[in-house]
Amino acid sequence: MTHLDAELAEQPAAIGRLLDTLPAHVERMRALAVDATGLTLVARGSSDNAARYAQYLVPIRSGLPVTLATPSLSTVYDRTPSFAGQLVVAVSQSGRSTDIVAVLAAAREQGRPTVAITNDPGSPLAAHADHVVDLATGRERSVAATKTYTTSLVAVAGLALALGPTSGDDGAWEDLRALPGLVADALVAADAPARETARTLHPASRAVAVGRGLNLATAHETALKITELTGTQVVPYSPADLRHGPIGAVTPEVPVLLVAPDEAATTGVLDLVPELLGRGAAVHVLGAATNDASLPDGVTTIVPVPAGVPPWLSAVVAVVPGQLVARALAVSRGVDIDRPGGLSKVTVTH
Amino acid sequence: MTHLDAELAEQPAAIGRLLDTLPAHVERMRALAVDATGLTLVARGSSDNAARYAQYLVPIRSGLPVTLATPSLSTVYDRTPSFAGQLVVAVSQSGRSTDIVAVLAAAREQGRPTVAITNDPGSPLAAHADHVVDLATGRERSVAATKTYTTSLVAVAGLALALGPTSGDDGAWEDLRALPGLVADALVAADAPARETARTLHPASRAVAVGRGLNLATAHETALKITELTGTQVVPYSPADLRHGPIGAVTPEVPVLLVAPDEAATTGVLDLVPELLGRGAAVHVLGAATNDASLPDGVTTIVPVPAGVPPWLSAVVAVVPGQLVARALAVSRGVDIDRPGGLSKVTVTH
Repeated sequence: MTHLDAELAEQPAAIGRLLDTLPAHVERMRALAVDATGLTLVARGSSDNAARYAQYLVPIRSGLPVTLATPSLSTVYDRTPSFAGQLVVAVSQSGRSTDIVAVLAAAREQGRPTVAITNDPGSPLAAHADHVVDLATGRERSVAATKTYTTSLVAVAGLALALGPTSGDDGAWEDLRALPGLVADALVAADAPARETARTLHPASRAVAVGRGLNLATAHETALKITELTGTQVVPYSPADLRHGPIGAVTPEVPVLLVAPDEAATTGVLDLVPELLGRGAAVHVLGAATNDASLPDGVTTIVPVPAGVPPWLSAVVAVVPGQLVARALAVSRGVDIDRPGGLSKVTVTH
Repeated sequence: MTHLDAELAEQPAAIGRLLDTLPAHVERMRALAVDATGLTLVARGSSDNAARYAQYLVPIRSGLPVTLATPSLSTVYDRTPSFAGQLVVAVSQSGRSTDIVAVLAAAREQGRPTVAITNDPGSPLAAHADHVVDLATGRERSVAATKTYTTSLVAVAGLALALGPTSGDDGAWEDLRALPGLVADALVAADAPARETARTLHPASRAVAVGRGLNLATAHETALKITELTGTQVVPYSPADLRHGPIGAVTPEVPVLLVAPDEAATTGVLDLVPELLGRGAAVHVLGAATNDASLPDGVTTIVPVPAGVPPWLSAVVAVVPGQLVARALAVSRGVDIDRPGGLSKVTVTH
C-alpha cells in the first residue's frame, strides 16, 4: 500500500478527529472575529483550493466578503495592503511556505487577528497566529495532498460558522457529523467507477475540469490532483470562463470532467453537456448521486458520491471521485505515486 | 487581413485615444472613491485577467486591498456579500454578461459607488455605473480579445492612480504616454521571434505559462489567447503554484512559456529555468529586453519587448509577445482566426 492509498483511506477518521475539536475552534475564531467586516485568506496549492471553497461558503453563511491575499505584494513589492477590518487566515499543511508566513506576520503587525489552519501546530506559520486550527491528520507523506485537503475544507466550514450569525443551531453540526460516514461511503462507491473513468482517460494527455460556486474548488483540486499525480494536464474552469474562449479548444482529444454534486450551482455545470458532446468530447461526471435521473444522456462515465450530502458541505465529499480517478490513472501509468514527478513534499517559496 | 490582425495593429492608437480621456476618468474615479477603503472588481475571461493586474497594481500604488467578486454568489446563491467601504468596478468589453451586470447592480443597491470599464457605453453594465470608462477601441470583431484587453489594462492603471495618494505627479503620466510607442515597437520587435516560437510550439498539444506579480495577469492572458486561438491547451501558473505539484507534469512534451519583462517579480520566474531544462522542457521567454544579458543559458526562444518599459506598466507591453505567438500558431494550424472553435463573440452567463 502506498502512503497515498493509506492517506485517502484515513480521511474519514481524520475528519472525525477534527470534528471533535471543531466546536472549540469555532468559538475561539468567533471571539477573534467579533469586529471583523471581512475575511482575508492566504494559501498556495491545495490549500488555495480550500480558500476557494471559503470564497463561496463564508459569504453564503455570513454575508461577509472574502479576499484572497497575493503574497508577492509583501515578498516582492514590499507593499502589504491594509488588512483593516479583516480576520486574516492562512491555510498551509506544512506551515512552512515563507511567503504565507510573511503575510500572516504582516497582518499581525497591523494588529489584526490571525488564524493558522495547518497540520503542524509547531510550524513558523502557527507561531504568528492568535489561534491555530490543528488539522491533526498525522503526518502526510504523499506529495499529493488528500487528507490535509479535506480536513482543511472542514476547518473552513468551521470558519464559516464562526463568522456567521450563529454557531450552527440550524442543523449545521448534525450536517458536519455526517461527513466521516459520507466520505467513507464515497471512497467505496467511487472506487470501481473511478477505475473505469481512469481507463477511459488513459490515452489523454490533457483534459478539462469544470465546477462552479462551492465546487469550483473541487474542480481546481481535481485538476491539480490529476495533473500532479499522472502528468495528464487538466485545466480547471468555471462554466463562464470555459465559455469565454477555452471551450473552442475542446475536441475529441480533450475529455471533460464535470464536478456535479447535488448542489445549487451544478445546473450551470451540467448545462454544458450538449455543447461538449457536440464537440466530440468524452464527458465524465464526478459527484452525481448514483440514482440521479436528471443527468443528461450521452455522458461517458459517472463517478458517484452517496446521496444525502448536505449541499453546503458537498465540496468535502465531491472531491473523493477526483482523488480516486487521479490515483487510478497514476497506477495505470506506472507512476511513483508518493513522489510523482520526482517531487519532495515541502514547498518553500521566497 | 483578419479582424484579429487589424485589432492587434490598432492597439497603439486605441491606447493613445484612451490616454486622451484618462485624466478626466481618473479625477472622476478619485471623487467616487474618496471614502473607499478597498476595491472590489468583477470580471470574466480576458477582463478577469485585467482584474488580476489590478490585484497587484492597485495595492502597490495605493495600499488598498483588492477583492475579486464571485458573481455566482449573487446569481446562484442569492447571497451577495456586503460591499461596505468598497469602490466596485466591473470590467467587461461587451457590458452584456448578465452575471457581471447583476453584481454591479447589487453594489449600487447597497449604495456603493460603481464604475464600468467597457467598450460599450450604451450597454446594460454601463447603465448601472456611476462612472463609465469607455475603452472606445471601436468594435472588436475577433472572438479573441486583444485591443480591449490592453486598453482595459490602461484603464486599470488609471484606476490605480485614482485610488493612490496622488494622481501621478511622480512621472506616472509620462510613463503612460510612452505606452502607444512601446506597444507599437513591441508589435514589430516581437513579430518574427513569435513566428519562430510558434514553429517550435507547433507539435505541442499542451504547454504551461508562468508569470508572477504584475505579470501573473500576462501569463493568464497569454495562456487564454493561445488556448482559444490554437487549441494548444496552456495552463497559467505562478512559480509558487507550479512548484506546488504541477511542475511534476512538465516533460519534454510540455513546452513552458515564461513571462519575463524587466520587472521586480521576474527573478522568481527565471529562477525556474534550470529545473525546467532539467525536466527536458523547451523554455520560451516572453517579454525580455532584446539585449538582456541576464537570461539563463539554454532557453529555446526569446520573444522580446522593447527596453525601457516602465515596470508598473509592463503588463501592457509584455502581453504582445503572447498575442503574436497565439496568432502565429493559429495561422500555422489553419484556424479560422476570427472564429476559433466556432465561437461567437458575446458570452452571456446567467
